[in-house]
Amino acid sequence: MLFNRVAIIGAGLIGGSLGIALRAQRIAGMVVGVGHRKVSLDRAFEMGAVDEATLDAHTAVADADLVVLATRVGLILQHVEKLIPYMKPGALLTDVGSIKAAICATARTAMKKHSGPPIRFVGSHPLAGSEKRGIEAARENLFQGATCILTPEAETDPDGNGATQLRAMWEAVGCRVMEFSPAKHDQILAEVSHLPHVTAAALINAISETALPMAASGFADTTRIASGDPGLWADICLENRDSILPAIENMRHELKNFTAAIRDKDASRLAHLFIEAKQSRDQHINNHQAPAPNQR
Amino acid sequence: MLFNRVAIIGAGLIGGSLGIALRAQRIAGMVVGVGHRKVSLDRAFEMGAVDEATLDAHTAVADADLVVLATRVGLILQHVEKLIPYMKPGALLTDVGSIKAAICATARTAMKKHSGPPIRFVGSHPLAGSEKRGIEAARENLFQGATCILTPEAETDPDGNGATQLRAMWEAVGCRVMEFSPAKHDQILAEVSHLPHVTAAALINAISETALPMAASGFADTTRIASGDPGLWADICLENRDSILPAIENMRHELKNFTAAIRDKDASRLAHLFIEAKQSRDQHINNHQAPAPNQR
Repeated sequence: MLFNRVAIIGAGLIGGSLGIALRAQRIAGMVVGVGHRKVSLDRAFEMGAVDEATLDAHTAVADADLVVLATRVGLILQHVEKLIPYMKPGALLTDVGSIKAAICATARTAMKKHSGPPIRFVGSHPLAGSEKRGIEAARENLFQGATCILTPEAETDPDGNGATQLRAMWEAVGCRVMEFSPAKHDQILAEVSHLPHVTAAALINAISETALPMAASGFADTTRIASGDPGLWADICLENRDSILPAIENMRHELKNFTAAIRDKDASRLAHLFIEAKQSRDQHINNHQAPAPNQR
Repeated sequence: MLFNRVAIIGAGLIGGSLGIALRAQRIAGMVVGVGHRKVSLDRAFEMGAVDEATLDAHTAVADADLVVLATRVGLILQHVEKLIPYMKPGALLTDVGSIKAAICATARTAMKKHSGPPIRFVGSHPLAGSEKRGIEAARENLFQGATCILTPEAETDPDGNGATQLRAMWEAVGCRVMEFSPAKHDQILAEVSHLPHVTAAALINAISETALPMAASGFADTTRIASGDPGLWADICLENRDSILPAIENMRHELKNFTAAIRDKDASRLAHLFIEAKQSRDQHINNHQAPAPNQR
């Protein structure tokens, strides 16, 4: 058992799936779920995601060995500041947010301000999930085979023990764990996640209302992630502004390459652009299907 | 039985699947497959896609009541010109190409030149397929639930009988049939098919080699169609140049809207862009998964 008591703030897809996996695999002695809607917490309990559920985050974190912030990014930033003073000495704080630089900076500042006994913070980002959200979509194997990025920093995890414990936890629930600096994480995610979300949304917005109903399965695949939570993605883009703006510019530049080749009727240049894309994709991307929800 | 004898030129995914469906449902008395590789034709025969197979298109079309051109677009254009003189009086010619204006124009010209007995031409475009290609991926239910667009024109189908027969055939294999002018077809397809292919390819090309291996399932979905045949898509973009160039410009403009909202930290404008996309998608797009290959 890695942790006696884990508090998960936010019982949605990620928090709920983590709770199910931690309990099913006896990684935690006890999982306490914290939410702001009783109905979701009741469902989390029914689904086996938590041993206890409460609306009161302060009490829940007070005796937790690990606190996991699994809300949307905007709330994670608030929770980091507000909850650190309530955590017990030596406890470990992490989050599962899709951006890391802003969250880690907030944690550094909050820990400097906090005059109480030392706690540790290490950012986590499990690259798992789907356009489905909420506790109903949670399942034990959500993290199986997923990459989880940790962003440990000396200021908030001086002896590296926090990162060691979190690596063990994420590996136990099925993740392949990697470590990057918060800034490098955000740059990579801007490219492989945030840009694709912006692109999918822009693609739908670019298409006329008369044409949309004619779209076939290829279009459905290409735009699936645009079914995600708009507010969440707006938050992420604003928080990762410095990395996503250049990524969108790269994308506009690549589209311009296609425009130039088509405009100039340059068949070999155009074919080369398609070939380059196909080869990169075939080499690097597992052709995995989106996981079906509720497989547990 | 709609046709006594159907010749299908090109025994790949679309031609093979059509052959299987026509034979299985007794829509055609006899299906003759024409290809340029004996091994593919043998496989088409084994899979039940054709009754006969030949490398000789001229002979195959000579006594066919319906000729279906199911090769890539560049070859369809050549076949339209070359095969019309060999077709029997009163026979019907169609194709399954992803662009229609160029093909229909070629058919009009070829039929004017052709001094022999009248034949009819009507363009078809079944919006079915996947990034998988070739006879191995062919299956009877490929067209089930797919839209098929017909582009009949008075010059090449004066009494409309060709369109009537093709509508009956595509409906019999499971399609929902719609009719548009060739130009309107190309404009719609530029939006819902050609632009998404260009976008998926540009997205991969925009991402650095170091970031690509970190991509998760959302990225795999968004770029799946970029696994398609590069030569085919280069052909299509060049043939549909007039419609795809403005579509790419729209896409670049929509991306610029995201850039502006993120740059200006305009959270409500940014959220609105994501909401608009999600609502359009949820309203118009069936969230269908890509069909698994070889389900027959």
